[in-house]
Amino acid sequence: MDKKMMTIDLNSQAMLDKAAKDGVETMYDRKLSMKAQCGFGLQGTCCRICAAGPCRITPKTPLGLCGADEHVIVGRNFARMVAAGTAAHSDHARGIAHTLSLSSRDGNYTIKDEVKLVNLAKEWGVETEDRDIYDIAHEVADIALMEFGKPHGVLNFLSRAPKQRQEIWKRYAIEPRAIDREIATIMHSTHMGCTADIDSLINLSMRTSLSDGWGGSMIGTIFSDILFGTPTVRQSEANLGVLEDNKVNIILHGHEPSLSEMIVLASEDPELVALAKEMGADGINLAGMCCTGNEVTMRHGVRTAGDFHQQELAIVTGAVEAMIVDVQCIFPALAKVAECYHTKFITTSPKAKIAGSTYIEFTEETALDDAKRIVREAILNFKNRDKEKVEIPQLKSSTTVGFSEQAIIGQLDRVVNSQIDQAGTVKPLVDCLKSGVLRGVVGVVGCNNARSTSNKAHVTIMKELIKNDILVVTTGCGASAAGKFGLLTKEARSMASKGLATVCELVDIPPVIHLGSCVDCSRILSVVSEVAKFLDMDMCDIPVAGVAPEWMSEKAVAIGTYVVASGIDTYLGIMPPVAGSDKTVEILTQTLQDSVGATFKVNENPEELAQMIIQDIEKKRVHFEKLVEEKMNEEATVEA
Amino acid sequence: MDKKMMTIDLNSQAMLDKAAKDGVETMYDRKLSMKAQCGFGLQGTCCRICAAGPCRITPKTPLGLCGADEHVIVGRNFARMVAAGTAAHSDHARGIAHTLSLSSRDGNYTIKDEVKLVNLAKEWGVETEDRDIYDIAHEVADIALMEFGKPHGVLNFLSRAPKQRQEIWKRYAIEPRAIDREIATIMHSTHMGCTADIDSLINLSMRTSLSDGWGGSMIGTIFSDILFGTPTVRQSEANLGVLEDNKVNIILHGHEPSLSEMIVLASEDPELVALAKEMGADGINLAGMCCTGNEVTMRHGVRTAGDFHQQELAIVTGAVEAMIVDVQCIFPALAKVAECYHTKFITTSPKAKIAGSTYIEFTEETALDDAKRIVREAILNFKNRDKEKVEIPQLKSSTTVGFSEQAIIGQLDRVVNSQIDQAGTVKPLVDCLKSGVLRGVVGVVGCNNARSTSNKAHVTIMKELIKNDILVVTTGCGASAAGKFGLLTKEARSMASKGLATVCELVDIPPVIHLGSCVDCSRILSVVSEVAKFLDMDMCDIPVAGVAPEWMSEKAVAIGTYVVASGIDTYLGIMPPVAGSDKTVEILTQTLQDSVGATFKVNENPEELAQMIIQDIEKKRVHFEKLVEEKMNEEATVEA
Repeated sequence: MDKKMMTIDLNSQAMLDKAAKDGVETMYDRKLSMKAQCGFGLQGTCCRICAAGPCRITPKTPLGLCGADEHVIVGRNFARMVAAGTAAHSDHARGIAHTLSLSSRDGNYTIKDEVKLVNLAKEWGVETEDRDIYDIAHEVADIALMEFGKPHGVLNFLSRAPKQRQEIWKRYAIEPRAIDREIATIMHSTHMGCTADIDSLINLSMRTSLSDGWGGSMIGTIFSDILFGTPTVRQSEANLGVLEDNKVNIILHGHEPSLSEMIVLASEDPELVALAKEMGADGINLAGMCCTGNEVTMRHGVRTAGDFHQQELAIVTGAVEAMIVDVQCIFPALAKVAECYHTKFITTSPKAKIAGSTYIEFTEETALDDAKRIVREAILNFKNRDKEKVEIPQLKSSTTVGFSEQAIIGQLDRVVNSQIDQAGTVKPLVDCLKSGVLRGVVGVVGCNNARSTSNKAHVTIMKELIKNDILVVTTGCGASAAGKFGLLTKEARSMASKGLATVCELVDIPPVIHLGSCVDCSRILSVVSEVAKFLDMDMCDIPVAGVAPEWMSEKAVAIGTYVVASGIDTYLGIMPPVAGSDKTVEILTQTLQDSVGATFKVNENPEELAQMIIQDIEKKRVHFEKLVEEKMNEEATVEA
Repeated sequence: MDKKMMTIDLNSQAMLDKAAKDGVETMYDRKLSMKAQCGFGLQGTCCRICAAGPCRITPKTPLGLCGADEHVIVGRNFARMVAAGTAAHSDHARGIAHTLSLSSRDGNYTIKDEVKLVNLAKEWGVETEDRDIYDIAHEVADIALMEFGKPHGVLNFLSRAPKQRQEIWKRYAIEPRAIDREIATIMHSTHMGCTADIDSLINLSMRTSLSDGWGGSMIGTIFSDILFGTPTVRQSEANLGVLEDNKVNIILHGHEPSLSEMIVLASEDPELVALAKEMGADGINLAGMCCTGNEVTMRHGVRTAGDFHQQELAIVTGAVEAMIVDVQCIFPALAKVAECYHTKFITTSPKAKIAGSTYIEFTEETALDDAKRIVREAILNFKNRDKEKVEIPQLKSSTTVGFSEQAIIGQLDRVVNSQIDQAGTVKPLVDCLKSGVLRGVVGVVGCNNARSTSNKAHVTIMKELIKNDILVVTTGCGASAAGKFGLLTKEARSMASKGLATVCELVDIPPVIHLGSCVDCSRILSVVSEVAKFLDMDMCDIPVAGVAPEWMSEKAVAIGTYVVASGIDTYLGIMPPVAGSDKTVEILTQTLQDSVGATFKVNENPEELAQMIIQDIEKKRVHFEKLVEEKMNEEATVEA
């Protein structure tokens, strides 16, 4: 197989050629040299939970040593993926909450969205009258930090869901308590000799995942907005072509904005800019990658160098002075790739030390100093760039980014008839959905996965959806793909069908809306919840869906699970490791409909997956339109 | 292979014959029909952490898709075992702390050890003067519950360690913060794209494991003592022979005493005893199994029916009316085995629902009522016993149990010269160690593992150690093995060499001392810590060791790791899944000596393992005796 067939990104293809020329191994090489993957692992039927094992389920050995069958084994493995994904998002959120607790008027971290902070303070019963905003911030931060470990009660943000949804969570005992507690408890429940009932394992998984969606991720998003500013609409660009020939190129890769925000500040420091010029560069060029890329493009318009599958290829350009990373989705392979060039691979987090990297610990307490030290390292490295080895692929696409929930509502306000309606609500979106001008809204989220062609499923599905009057919102590496392939431009409405194109024109938005990083999938929950509450419906009543066409990480499993548990159907382009248990497949794809009103659906063919979504949205519309009509009749009766 | 060769327990062998006759499949059958186990799993070199995988390390594919090498993969898998084990112990402890918070003078749960509670309250700065003991209890419980989730600071019980040890933990940044936080953080750090440095992975594992040993497990033990009474020395019996022909036999299996204590109470309820007689039984016979067995034998002398590997075989006797379980180490297979007899397999915990069981939820709030309902189920089931199918093997051994730290000190007080020395200290033990009458103390702990002959390694090693003047303390299924093979009797001193035998006689203890369940490994930490502090030494200076000859569960990995991180060498009779990474093996078996002063050692041959321990204890004595001498000289100098 030709390596270049493994990605549809032309820049990536060019860099794969260069990597081959430079003798550099990438993920694509490793994928090609990999033999068939273990069937037990792919199907989820390998149990390594105790050291009497490993046990593998076969027709001749249908039970593990303890008697665990395929359902138990698959279910426990699935639950642990949810646990790890939840842990990743939530530990990230804890970091942000901790940063808020360190904020001060003249410190490194200041409050950027006071309104959001004050609203949250009021929601949480924190006194706001006549108080210093930083006192409020610290009290709110303390409450948030307790969300991870409070011994009593359920998560605060559950109350943001429609009441119908809250009742379902209560009925099925899946209201999450403290976030870390859910992680600990599900790790316990999946320990040898604990839960051996697939229904219970899926319920526990849902509860844990909800502590991600309505807990860690939501805290991560909201607190980042408070600290670093709620994103507003801005222009940017995406793909490796954003790297520059004669600037100090610094790539920010990872997830937590506490680091990247400081790097952004440091890169604008006059002394450091001067130093860059002193070193013969025209300046400092920051570019983002993966979810950190999404964070900084959303808030600063920092251009996106690429997605998860391009992290090695960015270094292969030979033009990157430093790849600065914090946590999650960082290839350990970067150390070796960086060695082949002059690139400094700088790790910064005690939670993600990587062998072969330059470790410069970043702490919130000394944030700007740490950031400056790191940027200085990059600048000083400019002189080591080997011009012979530089090849920056030229492709890049314009993007319009920065669509927080508030920014979306801001755009919607453009079509509010201020004579009749209030501004600042989701009513225009609701009206579009009710009228059917928009058939639905679909979140396309997630990673890249070496099991499928990079970006292909993302792009195929997004194009197909917008061609069918479905508005797409996107986060994570889905958003990066959309950006690289021109879908985040307002001009992309030419690819949309008439209803959507008209809405895009009136509201002045692209047909694919960049909502942020992977923790920002919580923004999807927020928007859908607001729409549902506006209509006095449950979230499962709205014609919306989630898709993870190329998902790869445990975070994606947590996200998919909380999205389903929130009543939103979720479509996967990669089969999760559950095929070995027909009961698990049945629960995830069918039975959950009866409890939480949504299910998973899987199809590894992106064209087919897109058609499934479109058809299901239309089916959902029948139900939705009926409900809308009932509500109208009810209202008419009440008025009469 | 003959199934009966897979256990050295004659009762088990008899029940395997009966199971075959009855057409009942057991773990031993499944082990026999199992093909070779997966080498990647056994070596730890299979990565299923993201869904691009599974990736397996081979000479031809030395890296996973992301670039993770064998060290990263092995290290992450190891870290997650520690996380799950820590979660199991700690979630158990949370339950006990929660129970303490519900205690009341006239409720189901009362305070049984007021002295321990008040001492702890003082240690934690809780006001104790002129306060109702239940007010104190509730405040202490609240503090304990915060140990799982407090946003700031490190665990309270770390301060119980010798100051030298605390300094080491500080130096290597392995002081655990809140328990659940450590679990969440290590799940995050082992997520795709996070920690890829084996030294860091092992350090994170140690930090997490310490939140088990000096956190969850220690809370579990101490709070159980406060609530249910600190164990005192008492007589009991062990092995399947404790089941009775004409009584309602109820087996308590699992871990958390909150349930088993109530079942003990319920089984003494006059109405229920009368009901049992009404049903034609001579009464109710409670028997324990696994760690619940250890808890109830330690506190009530309830007899032990058997260990982890006998859970199916107990039902095969045909004489068990109910197998009542809560969490951990429960074979899902029990449902099928119970179906072959009249036995009711009753699950009680929402954390461990098991398909095919009778689920009767047990909650602390309605504890005694729940317990009575469960016992009633068992009694009513007596009439369904099929006498044709009953065969109770006759072997059982006497045991002397109940050796809490306080009970040990109580025994030691027998040899205190009250003219010179204070009672209630570890001085007599210290003196025995200093003089060399006792060469050392070794904790033999852990499970049974189908990869080795049931009980053989436990019994072989214990016998060999006591033959060499090494006092053995034991917990978990190690304690059950010791009990079944007569090692927990005072008469067993005849198997000990002279020094130990003399000590046993003077102090009136068996040469193998039953310390409790697997969370009670924290008692080992406490005793070693007290001895070290008495001598102003670090824990790694004392001639002690831990052994897990037949370990199987993730809890054992957590225990082994916190024992090593506490400075105590740990010997394993089963190779953990780390052999695929030479660096991991090197760190665990060598490098850790330089940081935490202890290592893991592995040998799957029990005789050889015993000899290793004995030799190492002698080596440790050289160091220990030198230190003792130095301290004496120092003291002499100071006095002069």
